[in-house]
Parts: sequence; C-alpha cells; structure tokens
Amino acid sequence: MAFQLIALYAHPESATAFDKHYDETHAVLVARLPGLRAFTAMRPAPAGGERAAYHLAAVLTFDDEKAFAAAMATEEGKAAVADLANFAGAGVTMLTGPADTVR
Amino acid sequence: MAFQLIALYAHPESATAFDKHYDETHAVLVARLPGLRAFTAMRPAPAGGERAAYHLAAVLTFDDEKAFAAAMATEEGKAAVADLANFAGAGVTMLTGPADTVR
Repeated sequence: MAFQLIALYAHPESATAFDKHYDETHAVLVARLPGLRAFTAMRPAPAGGERAAYHLAAVLTFDDEKAFAAAMATEEGKAAVADLANFAGAGVTMLTGPADTVR
Repeated sequence: MAFQLIALYAHPESATAFDKHYDETHAVLVARLPGLRAFTAMRPAPAGGERAAYHLAAVLTFDDEKAFAAAMATEEGKAAVADLANFAGAGVTMLTGPADTVR
C-alpha cells in the first residue's frame, strides 16, 4: 500500500509571501526528496462565501512507509522540514499514513 | 491544471462502523463518479502519542474544475454526497481547488 503525507497549511498573515516562498523554495526542496512518487499542491477555493479551512494542501506519495521514513532521514528530508520555520508560522497540520489507491 | 477535492473526516464515534461504511459503500459510490482520474483514501496514523487531526483523508482528482462540477451534477455525484449523511455525522471538512502536479 502507498504511503502519504498530507500537509494542511493554515491561512498565513500574507498569502502573497507564503505563496512565493512555497512555490520558489519549499516545493523545490520537497520535489528533491528521494523516493517521492507524486507531489501535488492544492490551493482550496472559498466555498459558500467563506474562506477554506486551509490555505494550501500538499499531498506527497511514497511507495510505502519505509520509503517515506528513509526520505525524511536524508539531507533533503531534513532541509524540507527545517524550511517550514521560514514560512509556516501560522501552523501546519501533518497527516501521515497508508493510502489505498481506490482508483 | 488538475482539480482536487480533499475530504477530511473527523474522528467518528465508532471507527469500526465508519470504516466499514466508507470502504463498502461510500468509496464504491465515489469510484463511480464520471471523469474521476484518481482517488486515494488515507488513514492517518497517530503521531507523537496523539491521534491524528482527522480519521480519514480522501483525495479525488479530476482533469479540471469543469470535469469536477460535471461529475458532482450527475446522479452518481448526488448519490455520493447524499451518502455522507449515513456515516459522516462527526463532520467532514471539504477542500476543493486547483492542484499543481509538482511531481
């Protein structure tokens, strides 16, 4: 079974600064993770006149939990985690677990 | 750009009943959505001794927003939404928006 990390970023003080850092720096670091099979960054749209619960939702997919753990233990993994302090001060909710590919 | 719906399900009263309904009924309904390109169901593991923020995170991917809207307007889309009342009483946070495929 595949293994996912879903990162849910809270709305930042400055969406412009967050988006610039995410796209130009953080996403580049994440994309370097060894064994990363897929990586999407989704920006939730407002719904029903209210802003979404999160500013950005990233989905990282690995072959299995072992590949995920190995990736996070590399220099690339440590760099990506360390970079969170540079732009995610508003908070980030991390979900990690096995993912069924239903389709 | 692809379009995603991420459904974040709150911890239910009975995880066993939720999981059974999700796997045997809801996931089957979702998988029938016309134009659905990918569908994963992830069950977050506890982290740092605490339970995850959500019980289940589903990621549905469509080619674009138009395909997503068209899918939700079909009988299959209506059936999947109507089914939420049968198992998601603890709450579900829906995020919908454009998704960059970074990798």
